Amino acid sequence: MDYEQRLIQLRKAMKEAGIRAYLILTGDPHHSEEPAPYYAAERRYFCPFTGDNAYVLITEEEALLWSDGRFAVSAPQELKGTSYRFIELYRPENLDPYTYLKKHHLYPLGTDFSILSPEDLSELEKAGEVRDISFASLLPSRPALSNDPLWDFSNPQYQDLTVQEKIERVRQKMREAGAGAHLLTSLDDIAYLTNVRGNDIADTPVFYAYLYIDLTGAFLFANPSRLSFSIPGVTVEPYDHIVSFLKERSAVPTLVDPKECNAKLYRLLANPIPGAAPSKLMKAIKGPKEVENIKMAQAEDGVALLKFIAYLEEHPIEGKNEWDLVQILHSFRAEGKHFLGESFTTIAAVGPNAAMMHYAPSEEKHTTIDAQTLQLLLDSGGQYLAGTTDTTRTFLLGKPTEEFIHDYTLTMKSLIALSSSVFLEGSTGVTIDMMAREVMWKEHLDYKCGTGHGIGYLNVVHEGPNGFRYRLVKGKNEGCVFAPGMITSIEPGVYKANKYGIRLENNILCIPDISNDEGNFYRFETITYVPFETKALDLSLLTDQEIAWLNDYHKLVYEKLAPLVDGRLLKILKEKTKIITRQ
Amino acid sequence: MDYEQRLIQLRKAMKEAGIRAYLILTGDPHHSEEPAPYYAAERRYFCPFTGDNAYVLITEEEALLWSDGRFAVSAPQELKGTSYRFIELYRPENLDPYTYLKKHHLYPLGTDFSILSPEDLSELEKAGEVRDISFASLLPSRPALSNDPLWDFSNPQYQDLTVQEKIERVRQKMREAGAGAHLLTSLDDIAYLTNVRGNDIADTPVFYAYLYIDLTGAFLFANPSRLSFSIPGVTVEPYDHIVSFLKERSAVPTLVDPKECNAKLYRLLANPIPGAAPSKLMKAIKGPKEVENIKMAQAEDGVALLKFIAYLEEHPIEGKNEWDLVQILHSFRAEGKHFLGESFTTIAAVGPNAAMMHYAPSEEKHTTIDAQTLQLLLDSGGQYLAGTTDTTRTFLLGKPTEEFIHDYTLTMKSLIALSSSVFLEGSTGVTIDMMAREVMWKEHLDYKCGTGHGIGYLNVVHEGPNGFRYRLVKGKNEGCVFAPGMITSIEPGVYKANKYGIRLENNILCIPDISNDEGNFYRFETITYVPFETKALDLSLLTDQEIAWLNDYHKLVYEKLAPLVDGRLLKILKEKTKIITRQ
Repeated sequence: MDYEQRLIQLRKAMKEAGIRAYLILTGDPHHSEEPAPYYAAERRYFCPFTGDNAYVLITEEEALLWSDGRFAVSAPQELKGTSYRFIELYRPENLDPYTYLKKHHLYPLGTDFSILSPEDLSELEKAGEVRDISFASLLPSRPALSNDPLWDFSNPQYQDLTVQEKIERVRQKMREAGAGAHLLTSLDDIAYLTNVRGNDIADTPVFYAYLYIDLTGAFLFANPSRLSFSIPGVTVEPYDHIVSFLKERSAVPTLVDPKECNAKLYRLLANPIPGAAPSKLMKAIKGPKEVENIKMAQAEDGVALLKFIAYLEEHPIEGKNEWDLVQILHSFRAEGKHFLGESFTTIAAVGPNAAMMHYAPSEEKHTTIDAQTLQLLLDSGGQYLAGTTDTTRTFLLGKPTEEFIHDYTLTMKSLIALSSSVFLEGSTGVTIDMMAREVMWKEHLDYKCGTGHGIGYLNVVHEGPNGFRYRLVKGKNEGCVFAPGMITSIEPGVYKANKYGIRLENNILCIPDISNDEGNFYRFETITYVPFETKALDLSLLTDQEIAWLNDYHKLVYEKLAPLVDGRLLKILKEKTKIITRQ
Repeated sequence: MDYEQRLIQLRKAMKEAGIRAYLILTGDPHHSEEPAPYYAAERRYFCPFTGDNAYVLITEEEALLWSDGRFAVSAPQELKGTSYRFIELYRPENLDPYTYLKKHHLYPLGTDFSILSPEDLSELEKAGEVRDISFASLLPSRPALSNDPLWDFSNPQYQDLTVQEKIERVRQKMREAGAGAHLLTSLDDIAYLTNVRGNDIADTPVFYAYLYIDLTGAFLFANPSRLSFSIPGVTVEPYDHIVSFLKERSAVPTLVDPKECNAKLYRLLANPIPGAAPSKLMKAIKGPKEVENIKMAQAEDGVALLKFIAYLEEHPIEGKNEWDLVQILHSFRAEGKHFLGESFTTIAAVGPNAAMMHYAPSEEKHTTIDAQTLQLLLDSGGQYLAGTTDTTRTFLLGKPTEEFIHDYTLTMKSLIALSSSVFLEGSTGVTIDMMAREVMWKEHLDYKCGTGHGIGYLNVVHEGPNGFRYRLVKGKNEGCVFAPGMITSIEPGVYKANKYGIRLENNILCIPDISNDEGNFYRFETITYVPFETKALDLSLLTDQEIAWLNDYHKLVYEKLAPLVDGRLLKILKEKTKIITRQ
């Protein structure tokens, strides 16, 4: 059946259901950043578009696809030969899908409430009737959700708190909010609170589940056959039972985050108490064992990247392509004893490719390194037992221009400025962001992303609520106050279209500095242990303090990695971490 | 009648009115920072406390006064011999007045709704009945509100926009908000929109009034006999008529700021549309004529301060006291052709007095300068036709310690860092604040206030919404995005209890820097023209760029003031703005 036939089938079903329009959203019922392929299947069955951030809208006459500028070229190509029309999101001249629906009054509207946010549903309902409908049943097949065994991550070697202790802390916050229950839908929080992990989402050791906590019990909604162990204080119920369960307990005042809970479940609660999940902040503030394990994972990851640096030194790189490098780096990580997998899709981008922020090479699409290739931007990370890493280094492959050296040095200055900042208790990433940003802004440059994001503990690599960004983005609670124990990335960069992209990224741990009459001061400890490319630095642009910072950092890298390597790797490590001085 | 007799009288009236507690708040019906004395009269009649930020609560058995730590010593002294008990606000062990009322269930409660915010009223009503009651009628007399003529500030020499143009812009925002009317209660906004000024509040050229704008008309509620001129498009009604007027128009959807409107008027609106007043942002972004006039006012103010600097050079200062200096500075300002009065109470504080942030000398209470006096902190400003200024300089009077020189130099570095920052459109004061703050934080110092505030145009000296502060304070909308035309103070400092206080303050204008592919960059132009004390600088702590900034600044001061002075003043100006170099 081709796409047009599928649309005929869909429109027939829509007519029978009595709706004028059907909206297929991107996402899963858990507000996950990277949903399992299962959740994209319906859209991909009815529409040939393969990218993401998509809205598909089908009406009696029209088939529309919205997505963002990243797909402005590929989307129309993919839609060729169908009746679909592509509309680019965020362009001032284009209507967004919700405004389109309201303007053309395409009601009754059908859409899957389990993918929709309560806020968006209310917005859509302002203009007409919206029904909770899914036509996924028309699909002949769809990729299965993982049914692999979940694994017990509660070993005290890995955990500062037991599940009971964590849940008791949540209950304390529930009581303070006047709630008799708490519904949790975000997978990273559920993995954190239950001390359980899974592999339902690529590169992210979480599992599809809901968690319901009341004042005396806790209920995990996940396929019970996936657990070969028990979770103290937690009853396991089948995933799908959440709906009937909530219907029975609808009247209980329930703490729930309307930014994360889907509209289907939210609407089952007669007395929702809107508020952030207590686990958000608990999870962000890493305990001493978590920090110790993360530092071990970072060292193991540092060894993998050191091997990669040695490879670049010792092998002819010309003729290799970006995808080769991804494979090579993976093989080095895989040699690590505690490595479980990447923490996200590796970005290995050479030359101008690195200027595209969302670029990642694939087996099918990549660039080959040649004599003209200027630089390699390598942004990657690993999931370890136990810890999650995220590191970027930019390596010089060819002969740099003055402009490149200047921009590379600027990026280093920006990273150093934020890494060495000191701040009072009460400061947020909105304020501290200025330290990295001002270095760029003074030269009228900018990077079009936050300066950094929180990082999970064997969990999602983009973890809230801590982060650095100067503009508050709706739904990203990065007005969050920094506290010791939070781990965050710093990743400034310079991106010049059709020329090159530069990014340097470390992970930093917030730690106490000193306390005095002014209050409690905090600062950052860098916990990424990977040498920087120093060949591309213009030392005349660095202050004495910045050079000292770099030398101190390389000393730390040496101390952390030297015990783990020997022979030629130790030699390369020594070479790459040696003291730099002006002339 | 002594205070105890007045309390007997009050309790009798409370009993007749059927209330168990009576709460007297500090403030006026317009949410003014410094209300006219008229509004403090009731509290001062029933309670001997002379400070501010007070809550007086009278019950059948108790008489309680809350105020903050500034009055922890003076308040109990003033209350001596009465049945009043003092409770310090913001101490963790103390109940605040609202919690006290709720905990002891002191309902029905009476209080004047015209001083209360709608939010606070709702909060108090959660625990019982609250009635709109004032016993000010028991006072035998109270200071009158000003009935002086208002004055027309609409001359095109002073205004970029006519009243009609301003009101039309407000109407545009009203339409966007779906409002048929807009109720404005804040005096600085009303003065701005009507191009009228008055002298109802000390140091602030505003007047008591309400403004009501609908889609076709505008109504100013102020005593009509005070206006000898008409305001195009605005009908003037007696001040007190606002209540009956709003009752008649209760049903109209009305844009109103619940943070500024009092509960009495707010409750008269059946369809309030809560939102910030459009005039807030309009007023903050100064037009070209306003900026030109403000720069002239700043130069005139610079001459007054130059005269003061000359006075310090040429006269023996020992034996003079802080109050003398206030008078002397006033006399120099009064020589200015366009000077109308101070823009706030002058702070002239020597030695340790300057470490107390709210210190201001008076005729009765001041310190005399002697051979031991280290420094003078002078924070003052003027209201000019046309412009408002706010400047702080710290002068070295004695022999400085190394610590003082270090802290003074640090304050200079902090001011320079923020003054010379560059930032992208979209940045807020919460981010930019870090530039000034980090200089202090790196040395584990801090100043316990925002780094700066917006400044009015012949209006309040503390104007919102622009400002610099790293902590968002409820009710202060300093998440405001900076825009060209905004004028803000920068005033970092070092305050060491029982030793000294240092503050340096300039006013800066936000201006466009360059625009490129990254976006629109903005920066600041300094518009205060007063030489800095350079004797207390340790040049070895300043970078070359910082020394260059200082020399550029002094060159600007020279250029601005030289045409306005001659003779010995010109000589002093030359001397005080001469180029500084290392050794």
